[in-house]
Amino acid sequence: MKKQKIPKETIKRLPLYYRCLNRLIVLGNHTLSSTKLSEHLGIKPTQIRKDLSYFGDFGTRGVDYDLSKLVNEIESILNLDRNWNIAIAGVSNIGCTIMDLLDFDLSGFNLVAAFDSHPDVIGNTVYGIEIKDINDLEDYNLEAPIDIGIISVQATNAGEIADCLVDRGVKGIINFAPTLLNLPKGVEVVQMDLTSELGWLVFYLGNQ
Amino acid sequence: MKKQKIPKETIKRLPLYYRCLNRLIVLGNHTLSSTKLSEHLGIKPTQIRKDLSYFGDFGTRGVDYDLSKLVNEIESILNLDRNWNIAIAGVSNIGCTIMDLLDFDLSGFNLVAAFDSHPDVIGNTVYGIEIKDINDLEDYNLEAPIDIGIISVQATNAGEIADCLVDRGVKGIINFAPTLLNLPKGVEVVQMDLTSELGWLVFYLGNQ
Repeated sequence: MKKQKIPKETIKRLPLYYRCLNRLIVLGNHTLSSTKLSEHLGIKPTQIRKDLSYFGDFGTRGVDYDLSKLVNEIESILNLDRNWNIAIAGVSNIGCTIMDLLDFDLSGFNLVAAFDSHPDVIGNTVYGIEIKDINDLEDYNLEAPIDIGIISVQATNAGEIADCLVDRGVKGIINFAPTLLNLPKGVEVVQMDLTSELGWLVFYLGNQ
Repeated sequence: MKKQKIPKETIKRLPLYYRCLNRLIVLGNHTLSSTKLSEHLGIKPTQIRKDLSYFGDFGTRGVDYDLSKLVNEIESILNLDRNWNIAIAGVSNIGCTIMDLLDFDLSGFNLVAAFDSHPDVIGNTVYGIEIKDINDLEDYNLEAPIDIGIISVQATNAGEIADCLVDRGVKGIINFAPTLLNLPKGVEVVQMDLTSELGWLVFYLGNQ
């Protein structure tokens, strides 16, 4: 299986499949037809079959999907069957919502460090982690290596914080700040800001 | 100029250029070399030149960029020189942060309607708009047509609300809910949820 050949859009749909399947299992479902699955996922059965076809034979037409098996397979494909340590920089704003999501949707993620610059927030505890002063990020004594950094600070500070996270060994960054990050090769940045997306949307709509 | 041929990644960078350039102007800058501009934008001069080259000749090597001219051009390219009416569904959560951003980064956007399901929030005012009960979305008497809907409700409700927004004439949706939306052709959806992006990131990192 050449995982790198799989379209990014397919990969991005898998976590949503995973989330939905887990919920269906919690609600007492064990197997489900592709039609029913499609209703729950909100997309066409053909799309589901196409997405899953990249990863071998998940289901046969007319035979129900085994939900637990599907969840396990997706978990393995997405590398959710190992631990990913996360540090978050900027808890005050969008950061809180982010951490609620982490707890909820995907397995394998551990919050290992949280930083903020606001005096009212520093020293508080989130998910068992004490929020540290972001100015101490550079020298903070990490108990575990950080795999992923989530940046939700102001745009003007994001670059410096990203550099600092990379110096601490971070290989993947999700950047909520509306600014571009210039990081060394080998560090993957997911830019996730409303400014970019809204700009893209009105470019598209205005040129229809 | 064939706008549709421009890479999506380039378009998504333009709003960040726009944001940064506006700040530089506010700080008293009128012209700037591509090297200086590159420092502020956090990306290489070659990338800036490449991005801007899709839209005609913005700058000559060795000659400083006229910032106001550049801002006006980007405004025109992105269709920010016209008005875009936005409705937001789900104000309690991430919605508040979104609205702060709208006010700040891009011009041309007007919040015309806001909806929520939480009794403590319904009736409050945000940016001069009274927050309405989301159950009234279907019959709500719109004073202006909505161009763009921003959905930041729970995943289980997102599909129904999206359908409702489309029925009200919405052509573009930014979906923060971690669920897929199955909408008619002609409606552009920007999926913007941490679940998908984090899933993509660990897929990528784990297969490096």
